[in-house]
Amino acid sequence: MIEADYVTTDPDVLEAYRSDRAGFVVAGRPAALARPRSTAEVARVLEFAHEHRIPVVPQGARTGMSGGATAVEGAILLSLERMDRILAIDELNHTATVEPGVINAVLSAAVAEKGLFYPPDPGSWQISTIGGNVATNAGGLCCVKYGVTSDFVRELEVVLADGRILRTGRRTAKGVAGYDLVRLFTGSEGTLGVVTEVTVALRSAAERPLTALAFFATPAAACGVVGDYLSSGRRPSVLEFMDSATVDAVSAYRDLGFPDDVGAVLIAQSDRGPAAHDDLDAFAKVAREHGATEVFVATDQAEADLLIEARRLVGDAVGELGDQLVDDVCVPRSRLAELVEGIAAIGHEHGVRIPCCGHAGDGNMHPTVVFDAADPDSVRRGQAAFDAIMQLGLRLGGTITGEHGIGTLKQPWLETELGEVGLSVHQAVKQAFDPRGILNPGKVLRRPPC
Amino acid sequence: MIEADYVTTDPDVLEAYRSDRAGFVVAGRPAALARPRSTAEVARVLEFAHEHRIPVVPQGARTGMSGGATAVEGAILLSLERMDRILAIDELNHTATVEPGVINAVLSAAVAEKGLFYPPDPGSWQISTIGGNVATNAGGLCCVKYGVTSDFVRELEVVLADGRILRTGRRTAKGVAGYDLVRLFTGSEGTLGVVTEVTVALRSAAERPLTALAFFATPAAACGVVGDYLSSGRRPSVLEFMDSATVDAVSAYRDLGFPDDVGAVLIAQSDRGPAAHDDLDAFAKVAREHGATEVFVATDQAEADLLIEARRLVGDAVGELGDQLVDDVCVPRSRLAELVEGIAAIGHEHGVRIPCCGHAGDGNMHPTVVFDAADPDSVRRGQAAFDAIMQLGLRLGGTITGEHGIGTLKQPWLETELGEVGLSVHQAVKQAFDPRGILNPGKVLRRPPC
Ligand SMILES: Cc1cc2nc3c(=O)[nH]c(=O)nc-3n(C[C@H](O)[C@H](O)[C@H](O)COP(=O)(O)OP(=O)(O)OC[C@H]3O[C@@H](n4cnc5c(N)ncnc54)[C@H](O)[C@@H]3O)c2cc1C
Ligand SMILES: Cc1cc2nc3c(=O)[nH]c(=O)nc-3n(C[C@H](O)[C@H](O)[C@H](O)COP(=O)(O)OP(=O)(O)OC[C@H]3O[C@@H](n4cnc5c(N)ncnc54)[C@H](O)[C@@H]3O)c2cc1C
Repeated sequence: MIEADYVTTDPDVLEAYRSDRAGFVVAGRPAALARPRSTAEVARVLEFAHEHRIPVVPQGARTGMSGGATAVEGAILLSLERMDRILAIDELNHTATVEPGVINAVLSAAVAEKGLFYPPDPGSWQISTIGGNVATNAGGLCCVKYGVTSDFVRELEVVLADGRILRTGRRTAKGVAGYDLVRLFTGSEGTLGVVTEVTVALRSAAERPLTALAFFATPAAACGVVGDYLSSGRRPSVLEFMDSATVDAVSAYRDLGFPDDVGAVLIAQSDRGPAAHDDLDAFAKVAREHGATEVFVATDQAEADLLIEARRLVGDAVGELGDQLVDDVCVPRSRLAELVEGIAAIGHEHGVRIPCCGHAGDGNMHPTVVFDAADPDSVRRGQAAFDAIMQLGLRLGGTITGEHGIGTLKQPWLETELGEVGLSVHQAVKQAFDPRGILNPGKVLRRPPC
Repeated sequence: MIEADYVTTDPDVLEAYRSDRAGFVVAGRPAALARPRSTAEVARVLEFAHEHRIPVVPQGARTGMSGGATAVEGAILLSLERMDRILAIDELNHTATVEPGVINAVLSAAVAEKGLFYPPDPGSWQISTIGGNVATNAGGLCCVKYGVTSDFVRELEVVLADGRILRTGRRTAKGVAGYDLVRLFTGSEGTLGVVTEVTVALRSAAERPLTALAFFATPAAACGVVGDYLSSGRRPSVLEFMDSATVDAVSAYRDLGFPDDVGAVLIAQSDRGPAAHDDLDAFAKVAREHGATEVFVATDQAEADLLIEARRLVGDAVGELGDQLVDDVCVPRSRLAELVEGIAAIGHEHGVRIPCCGHAGDGNMHPTVVFDAADPDSVRRGQAAFDAIMQLGLRLGGTITGEHGIGTLKQPWLETELGEVGLSVHQAVKQAFDPRGILNPGKVLRRPPC
């Protein structure tokens, strides 16, 4: 194995780095863990791995939901967590340049101090890295207004499979010189190269958002509001959905004074300063037209924070229910009601609890399949439900992943989504970037037979 | 040659399709022109060309500025102009699906009828095709607020080099299943595949914009306004710059009552309805702080249209000056003044008129090198000035093209911008998509030696 002070083969340490947060995914046994501090050290690891044809698994904070950062057998785990410096914040051009291990929240706070704003805000923003966010093209709550990670990535430094160092993209607001490799690497889940530096675009700070919350008797009513409200031209900074099972879990976890037998909840925010009141009044109006049973519009910041609290608690509250697979599926927003109702039906059919919440404004839902890992039958039913959800998403004209990625979890389903020609083009791209197949093999694409 | 009713070898027709609008670029002699009406016919042309290793040059409306659509020797010109149907406008999900030959203005008008808005608005919007806009990743005036073509492309149908048909991307607002091939094709100038169907995202219609115009004694003063105004968090829908040579050309072309000896002009628009007044008052304030000699803020639509008129006339007015190369360079916006002043200096040094205008909010300038095509010395000086502008753009941390693309015009300069590793990755991508090198050979990338 490669000899360097940033490489360890200590079994306890390796064990701690073996997995990300994906349900259902089984980790292989890694051979070593490298925690380089510089691009040159990353390049050295890849040169070595390339020469010896050893698989390399890039890792950020391992908060991924699809097994992308999970060890494959015999791999070098390449953690970027020590490359955690903010290299520059350019206030004139509204960009920031960071090493990949910088935590999203650290960057967000640093730019906020200068009156700037880095919008991509995955639920994991306080623990996940910018490198991981880029590699997964992470979304978040405020994508509905501001877009996803890839909408903000301008320039990358990437170490290629053979250890060569590529700079690609540019710091200008626009540019069309050559192919868009920045976008190709973004969301490629460590299968095409290892990101060692990221320059992101920033915006001027937004106003603190105001919040509205509406209760509905049925998910369909809530989903109808989503379409009508967005079609009216409003641009909420958050538009989140929770189904009744999610609301029940939250209420069980903390009493927020919610009514019993809620059918669904929508939470909207607007960050347009004084105009936010108008945006939320309009939301309340549309919600009432769709039969909302109750609507609350915050009039000040304290109320606003309280109303969004329910959404913030979902992860922990649903976490109490048992072992789980947090799924991720995205459909055209006109199909949202069918998706949500279909997921509920799948839960009934397979005898599985599947609380469902998500980024309604983008048609992006996170049904959480709850199961008992110790009970093979429960696991089997959970897996069947998971497959049925994938199938439903595709049938509704959607995609098997809105933001969590493919990893190993959805690799077989990706083949279905891409189809034969799409798959073969993907394989050709992979082959062009990683001819020896050492970069995160088996993730996104099936490992080719040796 | 391929036999079909949509293929012609009539020399007069071929001649008419030989070139786009790039200056300095010499066209080869095409072997045939194909004008297919369906994806199947496009596939048939490519299968034939692939089998016989014949170069294929995709063409939209040939309004390109870099030679991308210009014939190469012995090529089949593949014009998509007859594939001009709008296939669907999805009002619920805010998307439109079109064939590639649809003219941008036709799409814009069709969606406007339904209260929707397709923002990308290249200066050529009334004559260029959506396929060409996608293949060049066209920008335009309102990119500064809304983004460029690639920010709106969701799904593509692409015929690959060997005639296979790929569907890639998705109609959902978000999605991360597999590599971002949509972005890879967008801006690839017909070198990776032929776009036969495009689904774009739409927005709700914006309000009609209001306009402000400010005169300055120096370009530096105007450029200072750009940085300060955007840093304040305002999002103008247009923010355009004209230098004195451009203003002079416009004034000579039509008397708009502009003062003599104007150093530079900025034109700003805001489309935020009632809030537009506030945006433009803020613009006027920043302009005056930077020493604007005069500022006009439209109070109604008629005045607004009058103020933007100067910008609309630039193409025709500058066109009167002689033969020309409309160049395109983009820098970080903090370097805009250096760019504009540097271009003026290059003009003096080489004895060439180079009126300069452009999308100031994006740091994207279009210096127009004026020359006399009949005078070899004038051509030589024009070319030297063009090279000096490329060099200047790169030295300022910018790119050799903000929106017009590489084509053949900038192919040598692309090698400089990409560097050795970047170039080799580009070649690997090209090889993966087009192993026989038949797709628009010599465009973007140098033609490999046979
Ligand atoms: C509570 C919680 C909430 C979440 N909410 C969201 C959400 O709202 N939206 C969302 O999109 N995701 C969400 N996620 C999923 C996850 O946080 C994101 O995918 C995140 O971007 C992963 O970042 P990470 O640093 O943990 O990367 P990891 O999990 O370590 O890695 C993710 C993938 O990226 C690759 N990778 C990591 N770093 C690099 C690098 N420098 N170069 C190349 N490849 C690299 C890995 O190989 C792997 O394939 C959530 C997760 C949790 C636990
Ligand atoms: C007056 C004027 C103003 C302009 N203003 C702007 C501006 O503001 N912003 C801007 O970005 N550009 C501008 N341009 C340049 C030009 O209009 C754009 O590049 C436009 O996108 C080209 O579209 P087209 O249909 O004419 O494509 P063409 O010129 O025919 O082709 C352009 C490139 O795309 C390829 N191509 C075309 N169609 C396809 C297809 N279906 N599949 C694959 N490849 C294809 C061609 O091979 C070529 O490489 C302007 C041009 C003029 C004449």
